[in-house]
Amino acid sequence: MDSFDFYSPTYFVFGRGRENEAGAYVKKFGGSRVLVVYGGQSAKKSGLLDRIQASLSTAGLYTAELGGVRPNPRSGIVYEGISLCRRERIDFLLAVGGGSVIDTAKAIAMGAVYDGDFWDFFSGKVPEAALPVGTVLTIAASGSEGSPDSIITHEQTLEKTAAEADCLRPKFSILDPALTESLSPFQTACGITDIMSHAFERYFTNTPHVETTDRMLEGVLLAMLHEGRRVLEDPHDYDARANIMRAGMVCHNDIMGVGRRQDWNSHHLEHVLSAVYDCAHGAGLAVIMPAWMRYCVEHHDGMRFAQMASRVFGCEMDFSDPKRTARAGVEAFRAFLRTIGMPLSFEEIGADAKDIPKLVEMNHIGGGVTGGYVGLDRQAHFEIYEIAAGMR
Amino acid sequence: MDSFDFYSPTYFVFGRGRENEAGAYVKKFGGSRVLVVYGGQSAKKSGLLDRIQASLSTAGLYTAELGGVRPNPRSGIVYEGISLCRRERIDFLLAVGGGSVIDTAKAIAMGAVYDGDFWDFFSGKVPEAALPVGTVLTIAASGSEGSPDSIITHEQTLEKTAAEADCLRPKFSILDPALTESLSPFQTACGITDIMSHAFERYFTNTPHVETTDRMLEGVLLAMLHEGRRVLEDPHDYDARANIMRAGMVCHNDIMGVGRRQDWNSHHLEHVLSAVYDCAHGAGLAVIMPAWMRYCVEHHDGMRFAQMASRVFGCEMDFSDPKRTARAGVEAFRAFLRTIGMPLSFEEIGADAKDIPKLVEMNHIGGGVTGGYVGLDRQAHFEIYEIAAGMR
Repeated sequence: MDSFDFYSPTYFVFGRGRENEAGAYVKKFGGSRVLVVYGGQSAKKSGLLDRIQASLSTAGLYTAELGGVRPNPRSGIVYEGISLCRRERIDFLLAVGGGSVIDTAKAIAMGAVYDGDFWDFFSGKVPEAALPVGTVLTIAASGSEGSPDSIITHEQTLEKTAAEADCLRPKFSILDPALTESLSPFQTACGITDIMSHAFERYFTNTPHVETTDRMLEGVLLAMLHEGRRVLEDPHDYDARANIMRAGMVCHNDIMGVGRRQDWNSHHLEHVLSAVYDCAHGAGLAVIMPAWMRYCVEHHDGMRFAQMASRVFGCEMDFSDPKRTARAGVEAFRAFLRTIGMPLSFEEIGADAKDIPKLVEMNHIGGGVTGGYVGLDRQAHFEIYEIAAGMR
Repeated sequence: MDSFDFYSPTYFVFGRGRENEAGAYVKKFGGSRVLVVYGGQSAKKSGLLDRIQASLSTAGLYTAELGGVRPNPRSGIVYEGISLCRRERIDFLLAVGGGSVIDTAKAIAMGAVYDGDFWDFFSGKVPEAALPVGTVLTIAASGSEGSPDSIITHEQTLEKTAAEADCLRPKFSILDPALTESLSPFQTACGITDIMSHAFERYFTNTPHVETTDRMLEGVLLAMLHEGRRVLEDPHDYDARANIMRAGMVCHNDIMGVGRRQDWNSHHLEHVLSAVYDCAHGAGLAVIMPAWMRYCVEHHDGMRFAQMASRVFGCEMDFSDPKRTARAGVEAFRAFLRTIGMPLSFEEIGADAKDIPKLVEMNHIGGGVTGGYVGLDRQAHFEIYEIAAGMR
């Protein structure tokens, strides 16, 4: 096991109706002038924003609003939010939404207290300070409610990159599983895919002797196979949604990832897809992750995939040919994704095999290798996209 | 799943040699006049205290020392520590040791800023403030390095009770698995038993639909079966010790317990044993937990025990008689405890069956029932001690 630091100071508030406590928590964490950041009209129509406004106003807080954050959020709205914060002397950001809204709020929070261009933080500079952020989560997926990350796509270049710093971890996050009941089956399944990918990206490691974390990750993956099927049978199954939201909460604050080298290649391979085709991040992952797995099984000894196949997907271990078991595990994951209605091919997300050279270009590999469980050079990137496009 | 709050702001510093960063972390968390609390002479002899003193002094901190904390720590040394804090104007406590040392430091931290008798906090009063505490952990067991609890035994009454509050959570905890290599096999096994009991006490619940947490708990238990055997084969296996320490870290900061009613009966049943016979807490648990399990299997439908038996101990599920599987799981746990050298009977920890009425009396049940997976009345307490004493 590797040495590590682990720090996750977010206060999690979990349960039905708890968004009505938003005002009290903003106050507890020092806010007085609050910018509420949200996405489309659904939060307004459902009455959620009204209830949160009522809670903020009961707590005696001044509020301003910034709506219209879209999935795969872009830099434009971040600049807009930064101006608004300065104009309104905002001291707290409350994100009401999913990963896109939270990531936008985090980017605004950094930019509002920084003299330069906020994009610096998405080009390698580490922010030293940010306005405090709280969240009311409406989709279990990104884990941004407990993470130190923000992912934004540049308006012009379509570059989709991440900023990371402890000061970006939300002060509090309110997780009400009932708020996710209005999501479509497709959005729900995208969330499950994202959560599972956050587990897999930590699971595939060359760091030896990480049994405790392996077992925890396998546990969450097993739970997702169970709860994913349940929630798609009955979208109003509160408990299934609670288990999924609970998994999202632990899968990306890194309690499941410390002490090992991780592999974020499939996330990077996907970011290009959702940036170019504006597909849902979870949908892009459903196409890329199995392709990445198929590639990796053939370029490694396969034992870790065999472990996943055996422990998570219940595949019988083939002791004379562990790679057979490994491959069976990858196909079982693919079959599960299909069960919950996820796309599996380039076609299904509107991607075009002809674009592959451009996609590879956007990954900025140059002559190098992107590190991970299996290091990927330029040729490997081509091959994985080609597997995803059904060309191999 | 039940609603819950989860808050674990402790900064964890994990890895070989990281105790040398103690000074930097005390400073980071605002300390300038530090009381170093420790136990016996081993921390002195091994050179650990010297290295920590060097680190504190490099950071320019004033230090005082309080040694001599014993296992099952008592109120006397807490009063001593409180006086010392006031005399020396201490503003930070650094606990170097295991659960007993950390719990003592937490009790001192509460008492030092309180006008009344610190024992008030062990009699139901909730502390609102405490001096900040940091820890350098030398045994993986109690989880006190990330928990909001302190457990102290009253010098006169031998009452062993707990205080709990968020202000008691350590600011930082340094976890160096190499520091545990000098523990005896017995101490190591006591720690593993304590960690597993912290998992079981969260696992046995009547709260339905808690699959995600169940699977995480089962994962840690599976890892302990594996790593426990490994470390006892080779006490210098750093990685096995790292996996055990990592498990201890997550098994008691409640990331594995939120969202469900828990069952702490076996811990309470044990506290009386270690208070009266001064046996190691882990040894007492090894005697009581299987006895408590044997009792519970017969007083419930047994399905949760069957789940544990099947998923953790690999027992074949008997679909025509799930209780048979449940019992097999309990016996498998017992056999594992024996494998790692734990006592299993009253005799082996110096307890006497003739004392059972006195032990039951000390649990203060009166005419009530102590809640949990199976509610336990007075008669049940008798029966569990009798099972542990081999009388049933």
